[in-house]
Amino acid sequence: MVTFLSGGTGTPKLLDGAAAAFSPDEVTVIANTGDDIELGGLFISPDVDTLIFQGGGLLDRERWWGIKGDTTRTHDALYDIANAVGLEGGPQYLPEERQTEGRDIARWRRFSGIAEFMEIGDRDRAVHVTRTSLLDRGETLTEVTQRLASGFGLTIDLLPMTNDPVASLIHTPEGMMHFQEFWVAHGGEPTVENVEFRGSSRAEPAPGVLDALDDTVVIGPSNPVTSIGPMLSIPGFGAALNDTTVVAVSPFLGDEAFSGPAGKLMQAVNAEPSTEGLATAYPFADAFVVDEGDDAEFGKPVERTDIRIDDRRDAGRVCEAVARAIEAVE
Amino acid sequence: MVTFLSGGTGTPKLLDGAAAAFSPDEVTVIANTGDDIELGGLFISPDVDTLIFQGGGLLDRERWWGIKGDTTRTHDALYDIANAVGLEGGPQYLPEERQTEGRDIARWRRFSGIAEFMEIGDRDRAVHVTRTSLLDRGETLTEVTQRLASGFGLTIDLLPMTNDPVASLIHTPEGMMHFQEFWVAHGGEPTVENVEFRGSSRAEPAPGVLDALDDTVVIGPSNPVTSIGPMLSIPGFGAALNDTTVVAVSPFLGDEAFSGPAGKLMQAVNAEPSTEGLATAYPFADAFVVDEGDDAEFGKPVERTDIRIDDRRDAGRVCEAVARAIEAVE
Repeated sequence: MVTFLSGGTGTPKLLDGAAAAFSPDEVTVIANTGDDIELGGLFISPDVDTLIFQGGGLLDRERWWGIKGDTTRTHDALYDIANAVGLEGGPQYLPEERQTEGRDIARWRRFSGIAEFMEIGDRDRAVHVTRTSLLDRGETLTEVTQRLASGFGLTIDLLPMTNDPVASLIHTPEGMMHFQEFWVAHGGEPTVENVEFRGSSRAEPAPGVLDALDDTVVIGPSNPVTSIGPMLSIPGFGAALNDTTVVAVSPFLGDEAFSGPAGKLMQAVNAEPSTEGLATAYPFADAFVVDEGDDAEFGKPVERTDIRIDDRRDAGRVCEAVARAIEAVE
Repeated sequence: MVTFLSGGTGTPKLLDGAAAAFSPDEVTVIANTGDDIELGGLFISPDVDTLIFQGGGLLDRERWWGIKGDTTRTHDALYDIANAVGLEGGPQYLPEERQTEGRDIARWRRFSGIAEFMEIGDRDRAVHVTRTSLLDRGETLTEVTQRLASGFGLTIDLLPMTNDPVASLIHTPEGMMHFQEFWVAHGGEPTVENVEFRGSSRAEPAPGVLDALDDTVVIGPSNPVTSIGPMLSIPGFGAALNDTTVVAVSPFLGDEAFSGPAGKLMQAVNAEPSTEGLATAYPFADAFVVDEGDDAEFGKPVERTDIRIDDRRDAGRVCEAVARAIEAVE
């Protein structure tokens, strides 16, 4: 049994090749929920959805989010209406007092649906409506995720990291913004002063998570700060990783992150924005998988391969390196 | 100046011909909101929307609700997902404690979005998302309605009857159900024991409504019980009608209602399910417009014409009869 910790792009790309080294019924994936938001009343769980759509064969693999071939009729109409009515676009937080009302899980990250600042496809939207309505009738995010995963035909076991609200908030000189505003609306441009995982100190690992962390853990090439960081901020999560075998796949090719603002975010939390910084970010890691051109030293076992993942074959190659790294330390 | 009281079909049909007798900038329409619901977190105001889409030239005139040519991608996907996940369809109320949480206006009529029991088009949905987000940032339904009406190019003045929650609940031998469940999901079939307008005793007429009721009032051929009844249940509304000129257009051709369950609902509230019953339902009416084949007697002025409205010309003819009735009593 092996458990992957996943954000929304790097680790899903790696999981494309998991079958090269692991049987699907041995694989559990724990997904980040720090970048979940409520948008126009819908609870959206982007990293969970990427994994569901990937497992269900529906993922838009150009963007690594959303459903391939999806239409955007409602989304486009939201812009038409906002224009007609003279309403501004861009991320708009609901009023302060609304941030902590109603469904708990959406705290501190509630956005207006006016001129919807994230592009939500029409089929994709139906997933969010169904999820939100299941939450509203009292199911946990774990229950909802497992329902959807099974409905979409996933063979792996998919768990959200927690059923409690954890909001990844980015502090910048222009003020605080949720990660989705930082990334989607501002392209990761603002200077990052600090990263806060609001709610995490009172959050608990979701049911099944601590059990899954008893198995060998693979941290995929996801952003250590905003994809894996929210998990590590939950009490008990880091301790569980200390007690098991952990292999971390570098999300860096030298000083460059594969995707997303990993480098910049690492600097903001005082970690080296490169493979070396992984040792700081993941002190519990027993082995690392890094690029063959990367001469980082960790004083721990290292597997080297070409870690760029452009297709399933690349993913398989990296997963084989992961399996070798596990073998070296178990 | 003339003020129409409107539900979702009969009076909008009549308004199609308003220009034959009234200038658009002299017309105010007060819309029923008793059949508004929250569905999958979206606040939906069906009668208001029919009037907005009609005024904006977008209405689906086959159904007299929704936007013509609209697609239903999200709606269809909601069914696909519910099937895949094994979730039941049909109207599903949110849990009891959720009915009175969060935005006040949606009280007692909150439905799950799972396999969405009302068909919401994709562009239509964008209207509901925008409305809901405007409500969530603190605007009243009046403000939201006027924004949308102006954005969609309406020339008439459109007001919701109240900014407070009023829920039209139908008591049947099988239990209580919201009007939309009774009508959309059960086709108006269940036996009606009683009709309740929950919240109305504490509701206030929306800003502008009492002023509009100072003008001559036309009650269109809408359902007296569930379209006009919710308005009459609001304190102050009936008194205002007592003090002004009121002309009521019969929604009955003999014993038959034009559309909808008007006859059955009239019986449930102990009114004659025919033109005669209008005198009971509208004691404040000063004159009536009834069908030329209808020999009902009211002891009040009556204009007779062919009141079936199949097109704009029919609507114009009935509006001319309304104008004559007003002239007869003012």
